[in-house]
Amino acid sequence: MRPYELSLAAAADAIRDRRLSPVDLVDSVLERAREVQPGLGAYVTITADRARAAARAAEREVASGRVRGPLHGVPMGLKDLIDVAGTATTASSRVRAGHRARADSTVAARLAAAGAVLAGKTHTHEFAYGLTTPQTRNARDRARIAGGSSGGSAVAVAAGAATFALGTDTGGSIRVPAALNGVVGLKPTYGLVPRHGVTSLSWSLDHVGPITRTVEDAALVLAAVAGHDPRDPASTPAPVTGHRRPARDGDLTGLRVGVPSTYYFDRVDPEVETAVRRAVRRLAELGARLVDVEIPMARYVQAIQWGLMVPEASAYHERTLRTAADLYEDDVRVLLEAGELMSAGDHLRAQRARTLMRREWARMLRQVDVVVAPTVPLTAVPAGQASVSWPDGTVEAVSDAYVRLSAPANITGVPALTVPVGADRAGLPIGMQVLGRPFDEATVVRVGHAYERSTA
Amino acid sequence: MRPYELSLAAAADAIRDRRLSPVDLVDSVLERAREVQPGLGAYVTITADRARAAARAAEREVASGRVRGPLHGVPMGLKDLIDVAGTATTASSRVRAGHRARADSTVAARLAAAGAVLAGKTHTHEFAYGLTTPQTRNARDRARIAGGSSGGSAVAVAAGAATFALGTDTGGSIRVPAALNGVVGLKPTYGLVPRHGVTSLSWSLDHVGPITRTVEDAALVLAAVAGHDPRDPASTPAPVTGHRRPARDGDLTGLRVGVPSTYYFDRVDPEVETAVRRAVRRLAELGARLVDVEIPMARYVQAIQWGLMVPEASAYHERTLRTAADLYEDDVRVLLEAGELMSAGDHLRAQRARTLMRREWARMLRQVDVVVAPTVPLTAVPAGQASVSWPDGTVEAVSDAYVRLSAPANITGVPALTVPVGADRAGLPIGMQVLGRPFDEATVVRVGHAYERSTA
Repeated sequence: MRPYELSLAAAADAIRDRRLSPVDLVDSVLERAREVQPGLGAYVTITADRARAAARAAEREVASGRVRGPLHGVPMGLKDLIDVAGTATTASSRVRAGHRARADSTVAARLAAAGAVLAGKTHTHEFAYGLTTPQTRNARDRARIAGGSSGGSAVAVAAGAATFALGTDTGGSIRVPAALNGVVGLKPTYGLVPRHGVTSLSWSLDHVGPITRTVEDAALVLAAVAGHDPRDPASTPAPVTGHRRPARDGDLTGLRVGVPSTYYFDRVDPEVETAVRRAVRRLAELGARLVDVEIPMARYVQAIQWGLMVPEASAYHERTLRTAADLYEDDVRVLLEAGELMSAGDHLRAQRARTLMRREWARMLRQVDVVVAPTVPLTAVPAGQASVSWPDGTVEAVSDAYVRLSAPANITGVPALTVPVGADRAGLPIGMQVLGRPFDEATVVRVGHAYERSTA
Repeated sequence: MRPYELSLAAAADAIRDRRLSPVDLVDSVLERAREVQPGLGAYVTITADRARAAARAAEREVASGRVRGPLHGVPMGLKDLIDVAGTATTASSRVRAGHRARADSTVAARLAAAGAVLAGKTHTHEFAYGLTTPQTRNARDRARIAGGSSGGSAVAVAAGAATFALGTDTGGSIRVPAALNGVVGLKPTYGLVPRHGVTSLSWSLDHVGPITRTVEDAALVLAAVAGHDPRDPASTPAPVTGHRRPARDGDLTGLRVGVPSTYYFDRVDPEVETAVRRAVRRLAELGARLVDVEIPMARYVQAIQWGLMVPEASAYHERTLRTAADLYEDDVRVLLEAGELMSAGDHLRAQRARTLMRREWARMLRQVDVVVAPTVPLTAVPAGQASVSWPDGTVEAVSDAYVRLSAPANITGVPALTVPVGADRAGLPIGMQVLGRPFDEATVVRVGHAYERSTA
């Protein structure tokens, strides 16, 4: 196994035991990144010189006996919405030409302190406002979309061009590309990971979180980036607990797993449904008790998601829309301009409905420990495909379909993990979501990890 | 001293010691209410029969040795936005003709459980959307406004027509009429007193709180109504502490009292300023250390207050505006209709600015324990007066002037108490605000009580 193929946990163990040098790991990942970049386009920039210097520093530190933790000397990709001092944060947009971040975002600073090495900045759908990431191609099939908006991060991790990555998730932007590329993605509880220094799409729905190749890896990254920072007004001062490495024990006896009887299996591709239901049975075999749950207020999901996101995005871009609207891609500009026409009344309706929906979800999550569901209703579509037809006769925009099952966790703020649960006949990955109680990432990770181990 | 003249604390002591029967107290207050009602118009309804029955029940209970607490057998007025099962909640509006509340609001239920006796429902500016309360007249001078929107509650308490009352406060509606009528008003911390069953003006700014004749009385009422109720989505689960009866000790040694060097003394009538500054010096004589503070983001107060309140009010009244707009008074209808035209972007700007302003106030309130300021910049104006001219040449709408110094506590959610600090040459009362840290009502009450005792 070449170093770039190692999971973060395996690489960390090898570095700690001096079986692997950070320099060799980083070189292997950089070489792999250079090799796949022309075909996949995961990166905006590969920061090779900076990475090699950081790797050498890590090597010296480790050699002198100072291992900072599991991220020390490990190369990562950061979605290009995340500020790193001295580099551009392009947001994959012409609007940001000439940009230069003056300071590290909170997450970049915390990862640097943990010894992680920046391999490069990864592509996002422009300003995170879309679900395809057109610059990037799917890691399994280059004719298909990467998903988005954290497409570059998911593809880099899936292709071995980063040992782990960070993405952001406003309606599904970590989980959708993770699912479509067969990797793990974790949208943490709203308020757990500070967003200071991260370009906003919709501040009441934005989250930052890890994209990795294993659930254990996601827990390791989360532990490094979670925790209060008052510079993000939504950051929760709650104590950080339960993001440690999951227990080795894969027994789920006594855990109540909610299986949605509504919403999450409606208009879902049969191959996706079959794979997810098989994974759910596996959880039962591991001891979990399956409990039917009805998803509350499901018919309001789309209206709430759009009613919150669209005006917040337009407010964030207000000045640039006045001065440089033509620099946005058409799809994003149209959404931004439309958002300026929304009334305060419509926005308030969405805010009030969210308050009610959070309450109803809290009630549901008293009956069960987690809820499991498909992450996305269909695998990666060919690039350029605009809509999906469902057997019930409905036609749905591809982006509406991809966001449909992930948005509830953004609205409610609950943690949501996607884990790979197989592939369809074309070999395209399928993801299962595990949703939990606010700040109970520990249980979400425990379930995902138990499933993963059982299939290893 | 006739029973209706007693403070709540004095009445409670007399009832507990069997020197006063609840029946005699309630009869005295009802008689006084009937006597002053034609001239002052504080009440929408005086619930005399119900009150007498409750007083008799309280008398029996007290006679049998079961005194529930200081509110047992004490007559109160509730602003007519507060649901009491079986009575109308008219909101002083034709829109509510034929209304009948099916259940008690949380505060009405808690007061009933504490043994308080409803004397009647008091007038509000229609739906709390204004600062005059035209049905009611000032307790000191019938040619002048009562202030609002809790005008009826303040006038009833000032005139002896209720031993205490509840008001609501969205931009100053407890404190403004309390100050203009020479009584005490306490707007508690946002989230401390549940609003379930209370008609909303603007849910992100609305508060319920006591109007009384002494600071001690306000603390007694607050203790009965504070505490979590999940039926109000903004209700804080924080532990209820520090609303007990203030200590008898009036020493303020070591307390840091912030005296605003900006905003709160701008465009303030000289007689008001003189009275408030004299009261501040009194606090220093009691041992407090005076500290100059700059009020952060003061120039945004009006824009934030209106940017939040106006669209929320319109959203609340949306259906009635469609079906019965002509039933509103013109002043209220115009505001509600205007609110429907506000854009989501303007509303979001106000929400974001509030977030920043809360943060800046929290910073200021780390330097001092409380901030003191005038409650309103001028005493009660004659009924019908529309604007005020200031020496700097500016002309201000009367309602803008009255809300100017009270709105910051609504935006930031901090507790704010008004205490009488004298009168102008015309004999019209002047109020001083004491603003404190969120959920630190104890300190606010301590300061107000110490001042009050020192002048007794």
